[in-house]
Amino acid sequence: MRATTLHAPFDIRYTEVPDPEMTAPTDAIVKVTAACVCGSDLWNYRGENQINPGMTIGHECLGEVVAVGAAVKNVAIGDHVVVPFCHCDNTCPDCQAGVQSACRHGGFTLSGQGELSRVAQADGSLVKLDGVPDPALVPSLLALTDVMPTGWHAAVSAGVRPGSTVVVIGDGAVGLCGVLAASVMGAERVVAMSRHESRQRLATAFGATHIIAERGEDGIAAVQELTAGIGADAVLECVGTGQSMETAFQIARAGSTVGFVGAPHGVELPVRRMFVKNIGLAGGMAPVRRYLPELLDLVLEGRIDPGKVFDLTLPMDQVADAYAAMDERRAIKVALTPVG
Amino acid sequence: MRATTLHAPFDIRYTEVPDPEMTAPTDAIVKVTAACVCGSDLWNYRGENQINPGMTIGHECLGEVVAVGAAVKNVAIGDHVVVPFCHCDNTCPDCQAGVQSACRHGGFTLSGQGELSRVAQADGSLVKLDGVPDPALVPSLLALTDVMPTGWHAAVSAGVRPGSTVVVIGDGAVGLCGVLAASVMGAERVVAMSRHESRQRLATAFGATHIIAERGEDGIAAVQELTAGIGADAVLECVGTGQSMETAFQIARAGSTVGFVGAPHGVELPVRRMFVKNIGLAGGMAPVRRYLPELLDLVLEGRIDPGKVFDLTLPMDQVADAYAAMDERRAIKVALTPVG
Repeated sequence: MRATTLHAPFDIRYTEVPDPEMTAPTDAIVKVTAACVCGSDLWNYRGENQINPGMTIGHECLGEVVAVGAAVKNVAIGDHVVVPFCHCDNTCPDCQAGVQSACRHGGFTLSGQGELSRVAQADGSLVKLDGVPDPALVPSLLALTDVMPTGWHAAVSAGVRPGSTVVVIGDGAVGLCGVLAASVMGAERVVAMSRHESRQRLATAFGATHIIAERGEDGIAAVQELTAGIGADAVLECVGTGQSMETAFQIARAGSTVGFVGAPHGVELPVRRMFVKNIGLAGGMAPVRRYLPELLDLVLEGRIDPGKVFDLTLPMDQVADAYAAMDERRAIKVALTPVG
Repeated sequence: MRATTLHAPFDIRYTEVPDPEMTAPTDAIVKVTAACVCGSDLWNYRGENQINPGMTIGHECLGEVVAVGAAVKNVAIGDHVVVPFCHCDNTCPDCQAGVQSACRHGGFTLSGQGELSRVAQADGSLVKLDGVPDPALVPSLLALTDVMPTGWHAAVSAGVRPGSTVVVIGDGAVGLCGVLAASVMGAERVVAMSRHESRQRLATAFGATHIIAERGEDGIAAVQELTAGIGADAVLECVGTGQSMETAFQIARAGSTVGFVGAPHGVELPVRRMFVKNIGLAGGMAPVRRYLPELLDLVLEGRIDPGKVFDLTLPMDQVADAYAAMDERRAIKVALTPVG
């Protein structure tokens, strides 16, 4: 098949690779019908994670099942499915505790920006759609594979409550979905920290009531002013850098929780401040499968439209352009359509 | 007055110092009627916190009010009171959010191991007793000034639930009170990590169902074995060192929360593990005043007896012996009685 492969920092190609193979009777293979680039793919693209030259990449896709292992019961060849980026049996103790992203029998979508992808624990992982999805819904369904449940997880982890003041750090697709989540959950004030006009507009469309364009000390001061020096009731940390985490703990009020979902890179947690102010940290890699049924309903009922995060669509063989557009922040998030 | 003063590491004395003075109309002065040494005093005693030679020390005491500022309404001269180690107005936004330990108008008991101590925000801080307390209750009332609410806070922060498996790291008075808290909250299995026989006995008296004497890798393995490799539903970190925190995150199950109350010294939080396993951290300096009414009721009803943590009582002018006994772990916690 053809798939996206990474060879060195900024060297990404759409090339021929071996087809994925089932390795367990609980596996399935899906033909990718819609895909996209994730902000976290950029860590690899930029060489901030280790690159194994020629490795496939891409963990967000919708698909049609083309093969199932002998033990798979819930999905069949021909089914259209949402593929959560992290796979799970949805029955182990960790899954039952709502942490499907830590399932001990799980795995990850590894060639989602390709023609085919293997799914471990197909019965637990895949969520079946009712036939071929309406093309108008595809962007929002695609957002359900990662960014929307991840933003939702940040809001759940931070304990967003009706009537509260929520600050979202990060204006990537996850942060914007965090804004949408906080808004749906009834927050009274949803503050998006963003200095990019197109992202500010989308944040507002997703329910942000305030935009703070400043960063660092100025951004912290702006939140403190907005909250009369008290700080935010809940902070969603959707970036994962040392600076964003530091900002999060500076603007979180005493007794609140920072919900974090950005894969941490170079983060040192301010344990002393956490202790003195009783500011907690919760979250992590999002248990997508946990939230999928609920979020799928919201999409199908037209109550949320997270697909708006896609502001560029390219055929998959132009994947290099897709990564460049996101890396240079010319696009918020790029959808990839199958070719050939 | 005479009070305990610290002059250099391990140089602690009972000496003459100026009487504390009220500095605001919301202050009160109490005559100390019962006092004790806290595990956190040992950080100062050992020189791990900065010492200002001659500084008074001691933040846990019961007292009789001997002076009140003009604005004080809730307590009067002659009242017997429980003095929380951290003071609070109990009305500011942080107090209302249940973080009285972060009250912006608060302060700390600074000469609790002396004859007199100043209390800021007397109306918010002090909890009045019904006359002179029954001597048999004094140890448990004294435990309410810090260690019992602190152990309770660890359990609340870790989200202890009925039926759960809870591991308590730390067999000092706070850890032992954490065992008691988890037990009162209905945990099915309460595991005390302790290698000291007298502390193991007290942990068992407080409701521990299991004792793990091993530390480090062996201790982690023992918890994993006990929980069939899943880990603990809740972990109470009641020490504050790098090693204890590391152990906490190794034994906490995916999706759980480490409740921490030990003042952190040399702690680096394992943010990567927290992310991958969705293990949160919550807690901090205990909002004693928040829990005092509830815990006072439990003591007066005879449902908890946290005063059992005191296994040595000395007159206050033998305070140097008290510190040495705790530092050398010959005593779990030492009560100090007024002299003269």
